[in-house]
Amino acid sequence: MAITVVGSVAYDTVETPAGRYERQLAGAATYFSLAASFFTDVRVIAVVGEDFGPEQEAVFAARNIDISGIERAPGKSFFWEGSYLENLNEAKTHNTELNVFATFNPKIPDSYRDSEFLFLANIDPVLQRRVREQMPDVKLVAGDTMNYWIKDHRAALLEVLKGLDILLINDTETKMLADNSNIVQAARAVLALGPKSMVVKHGEYGATLFHGGTRAEHSTFKAPALPLEEVVDPTGAGDSFAGGFFGYLASQKEQTPAAYRRAMFYGSVMGSYACERFGTERLQQLSREEIDARFNQFRELTHLD
Amino acid sequence: MAITVVGSVAYDTVETPAGRYERQLAGAATYFSLAASFFTDVRVIAVVGEDFGPEQEAVFAARNIDISGIERAPGKSFFWEGSYLENLNEAKTHNTELNVFATFNPKIPDSYRDSEFLFLANIDPVLQRRVREQMPDVKLVAGDTMNYWIKDHRAALLEVLKGLDILLINDTETKMLADNSNIVQAARAVLALGPKSMVVKHGEYGATLFHGGTRAEHSTFKAPALPLEEVVDPTGAGDSFAGGFFGYLASQKEQTPAAYRRAMFYGSVMGSYACERFGTERLQQLSREEIDARFNQFRELTHLD
Repeated sequence: MAITVVGSVAYDTVETPAGRYERQLAGAATYFSLAASFFTDVRVIAVVGEDFGPEQEAVFAARNIDISGIERAPGKSFFWEGSYLENLNEAKTHNTELNVFATFNPKIPDSYRDSEFLFLANIDPVLQRRVREQMPDVKLVAGDTMNYWIKDHRAALLEVLKGLDILLINDTETKMLADNSNIVQAARAVLALGPKSMVVKHGEYGATLFHGGTRAEHSTFKAPALPLEEVVDPTGAGDSFAGGFFGYLASQKEQTPAAYRRAMFYGSVMGSYACERFGTERLQQLSREEIDARFNQFRELTHLD
Repeated sequence: MAITVVGSVAYDTVETPAGRYERQLAGAATYFSLAASFFTDVRVIAVVGEDFGPEQEAVFAARNIDISGIERAPGKSFFWEGSYLENLNEAKTHNTELNVFATFNPKIPDSYRDSEFLFLANIDPVLQRRVREQMPDVKLVAGDTMNYWIKDHRAALLEVLKGLDILLINDTETKMLADNSNIVQAARAVLALGPKSMVVKHGEYGATLFHGGTRAEHSTFKAPALPLEEVVDPTGAGDSFAGGFFGYLASQKEQTPAAYRRAMFYGSVMGSYACERFGTERLQQLSREEIDARFNQFRELTHLD
């Protein structure tokens, strides 16, 4: 069952202890859709500039990702420059240029309208809500956000949270959103804002799935991260986690508690692969066999018997 | 099968966001032996001052812990004062008084000599080695250490590591000991220094078991930590983890790879209980039924099916 994702398709310049790359295809919707494409059909809504050409289109085409909803606008695509030289767990931002994203008004192609799953990647919550309202009949909506929107666009973000089935954010964002430094209390407070479930991502320590509302009887679940010998580039790991997680859920006929657990593992698998090479390189070259092999490795890593 | 443990039996004054207590019975050997006592016989080697009396003896007696190897010396017991006001994951030390520990020379009672398991809790590596040499025939030796010994007593510590089957330390200590910020590379480097296996403790994120040497074919294993609604006092959580881990291993006829995995869970169980109340309070009131109930909760928290 198809996922529509709205988010950034962008260019990144990134420096890590392993090296540096300039203006490579990136953005939350790119990482998400590449990761999710191994599980289900993916359709992207974004805006790009004149610097987005056949080379970039080919990356999506190779994974059968529908980009008919990517709008072309005069000017340059969204650009981000950052580094992870002191801390692989936290990016230092050197430059952000919104470019064509500054005036983006997302439109849903008719061919996307039968998508049963919607992912609102990390963008302005006003845009997230606009997309959500144009797709009232989806079966399941998940979303991401970041510290900037939590701090300075809280009212708009709270509106988005009300309409979410699943929120995926990291420890720091969870604590900031709830203004509570205990992660269990913070997660419960965030669930009270609307999301029926939430995934708190702990970077190199994996992720925890919490349930609220009518799902509160389902138990909390922890997925580990794979201990990695070398993290080449953590950029996009969280978006890749979300793609693996939501892509797997969308591939299942029923989203049972057991399916959520397996989705957590697939999220961790995709996040771990994303870190192994620069940018989207590893996701572009991945196979479903490799994904399932690592899924089994995660089981071995955590199961008693 | 009995464990002999050498380490501090001490008094702590501690302040946490949940409150404060003054000069309560504490110390690594106390937490370790209380936790391990739920699984096997425990015998303690330590030194205490004249401030150690019937009230403290009763804490050990209630758990059938043998303290005939606790030496009484003129003066005061080891004392530590610390707080966790800004960060529950890291203690801030306000005062350390070695007192009777300054001239401690550990002696092994004859009645301890048939112990098959030896735990060298966090004390001066010179003392750890002295105990190790007096018990050459034990079946399995595990140990702990801390940043102070790693930084300023490295040569003595390296001698201890050569004789260890299992080293249990935290992330920061692992990275410091290996001078490597990647935890997988750091763990491998530490294993090359002697320990056949090592447990890297991640605080609220659980712990990872790595194997080296002839055990290297056994797979890495991750135990989660329980998401805790309230951490009342993290003091002794690491020592309690070690007590649960090593106590369970010692209770098993054979220390198979599967037994190591279950031991990791029991370590996490004891660490999580230790944090729930001040000092050793929760460990003193615990039952084996509660321990096994939480063990099953950990399984539920991490297992797919």
